[in-house]
Amino acid sequence: MNSKVIRIDQLRAFCEEAFSRLGFNHSDSTIITDVLLLSDLFGIDSHGINRFKMYHQQIKAGYIEITSQPEIVMETPVSAVMDGKRGMGQLVANVAMKIAIEKAMTSGVGLVTVRNSNHYGIAGFYSLMASNEGLIGISMTNSLAAVVPTFGKTPMMGTNPIAFSFPAKPHPFNFDSATSVVSVGKIEVHNKLDQPIPFGWGLNSEGMDEQNPTEVLRSVFSGKSGLHPLGGGSEEHGGHKGYGFSMIVEILCSIISMGTTSNHVEKTAGTSGVCHFFAAIDPKIFGDSTAIQKHLENYLKEIRSSEKAKDKERIYTHGEKEAESFIQRKANGIVIHPKTLNEMNELSNELGMDFNTYFQ
Amino acid sequence: MNSKVIRIDQLRAFCEEAFSRLGFNHSDSTIITDVLLLSDLFGIDSHGINRFKMYHQQIKAGYIEITSQPEIVMETPVSAVMDGKRGMGQLVANVAMKIAIEKAMTSGVGLVTVRNSNHYGIAGFYSLMASNEGLIGISMTNSLAAVVPTFGKTPMMGTNPIAFSFPAKPHPFNFDSATSVVSVGKIEVHNKLDQPIPFGWGLNSEGMDEQNPTEVLRSVFSGKSGLHPLGGGSEEHGGHKGYGFSMIVEILCSIISMGTTSNHVEKTAGTSGVCHFFAAIDPKIFGDSTAIQKHLENYLKEIRSSEKAKDKERIYTHGEKEAESFIQRKANGIVIHPKTLNEMNELSNELGMDFNTYFQ
Repeated sequence: MNSKVIRIDQLRAFCEEAFSRLGFNHSDSTIITDVLLLSDLFGIDSHGINRFKMYHQQIKAGYIEITSQPEIVMETPVSAVMDGKRGMGQLVANVAMKIAIEKAMTSGVGLVTVRNSNHYGIAGFYSLMASNEGLIGISMTNSLAAVVPTFGKTPMMGTNPIAFSFPAKPHPFNFDSATSVVSVGKIEVHNKLDQPIPFGWGLNSEGMDEQNPTEVLRSVFSGKSGLHPLGGGSEEHGGHKGYGFSMIVEILCSIISMGTTSNHVEKTAGTSGVCHFFAAIDPKIFGDSTAIQKHLENYLKEIRSSEKAKDKERIYTHGEKEAESFIQRKANGIVIHPKTLNEMNELSNELGMDFNTYFQ
Repeated sequence: MNSKVIRIDQLRAFCEEAFSRLGFNHSDSTIITDVLLLSDLFGIDSHGINRFKMYHQQIKAGYIEITSQPEIVMETPVSAVMDGKRGMGQLVANVAMKIAIEKAMTSGVGLVTVRNSNHYGIAGFYSLMASNEGLIGISMTNSLAAVVPTFGKTPMMGTNPIAFSFPAKPHPFNFDSATSVVSVGKIEVHNKLDQPIPFGWGLNSEGMDEQNPTEVLRSVFSGKSGLHPLGGGSEEHGGHKGYGFSMIVEILCSIISMGTTSNHVEKTAGTSGVCHFFAAIDPKIFGDSTAIQKHLENYLKEIRSSEKAKDKERIYTHGEKEAESFIQRKANGIVIHPKTLNEMNELSNELGMDFNTYFQ
């Protein structure tokens, strides 16, 4: 199979049908599809349709309970603790961020910590739910352990992304980033493309720096070693800082929820134990939210128009690349890699769908 | 002058007297001294007595209004906006974090954003104020612009540290880190020691990578260029991530407070415009805080006892090095560099103090 340009409406129809056949009701299939497609539209190929196979495997492994409903186990006017009840991460996260938003609307702040969930896609989907309502949005998740602490060999933290969104025009400030040098998804993309990874991203199973993505993925999934935190493998360039940011994620996701820390995620049959954290904050508790937003927009403009580094033509602010990719891909479709097309084809066969009818 | 070992009680007597002679009342002199000394005790030489000269210069430059009182300009049960009224950063920050703590004790969460303050020392001093009360503590500040955005030449963000503390035994989890590869203070320490800095920390006034600390400091203080964000000067190793973390600090400090963004800090005569953000969160809003703390302590132990990288003997968790340095330096005193001793001596002369009587 060659790579193929697929329109978003085609991809949506395929995903919604596939999730329905996996047992999700229509509304849930739509939510999960929304999260995957936003990633592809944003140009984050690692976390969109590329991940369908992983979710399918996790459903088959019994990590994901298709019809379960998340449960609030404790609540105050500014906070909630949620048990994800082993539900699909996207569905659990959607409910949790809605609660954070409601609390922020009423109390000014809503903090929701979630245990016992599953992989939830791009962190930024949920922080944007808040900024779309005029609120500051924060979203974090732990994951399968994939990142080694500074001076360590064994992965003890997940890639633990942090997303932070703030309402702005022409599009929200939207920072969404793994606290490792790169996400596991990026290594997977290099692996699919048969491209070596840059030096300093990850380690092989012996804990030595490695540029073959297959070896690094083997190292992560065997739990033998993994990726460097943001800042790399030493203190000289701040590896202990990336390690620290991943610890903040761990504390807000898995510690205060009394959930599973990343080093124990996916270590028990039938449960992954992934944990999340969501915050929504109403800027109105700090004053005139319109003036505040204008203040940010001016600052972002100043940054974008500041002097460029040698041979660089443009300075981006966070969320710009994604917003531009969104417009471009919505209009022109998404180029899907042959290996991903093969995975989608296999999935179709397994679910009794006719792959070709979706992508003519 | 040679370097000298100075006991903490000697350093305290000297600092308190010097700040009193600069016009601060006894209680304020003690608070400022507490912040400086904790930095030296923690082994963070860049932010302790090494910075006395800078504060003295900023007082002379009229940035710091010695007897001013910070003012709350807006307040909700979970938040406050404070005008620092150009006060000494340590004093403003001390008041602001106390308000955040009070609000957390009553409402579960306290968020305080501060404009119109000054350099406040180590961020971690204030997050530890919260964790000492059994709360989660967060402290951030912007600063003089010193960090270039990804693909930029001109510094547009401060080194913008983030501190995050969580109660734990034998000592709190305490992460305190500039969102740049290194702090300006670290470059100053290399400069004092006449040591080149590692490649990838900073840029000279032409915006090119530079290992001479004098050139990098000149570049920062002239506003021509500066330091790389955490992750370095390209996207390949995540420089856009460090840039993003510094933007979060900017948003919570200078944007929501309607204060001065780092690119305008110290650009107006008589006002620096530094902004801060403080948060305190009561873990009890998430459940049994004793069980939560134990959960964290177990996780930290697991990390410390996990397999070490080749040739590494120990994995640290955040706050450990500082806690060990505290015990060691409290017992044995602090080695002060000759250049810093000279600065202290000059300060003594200017303030009519007899330097030698303090350090016999």
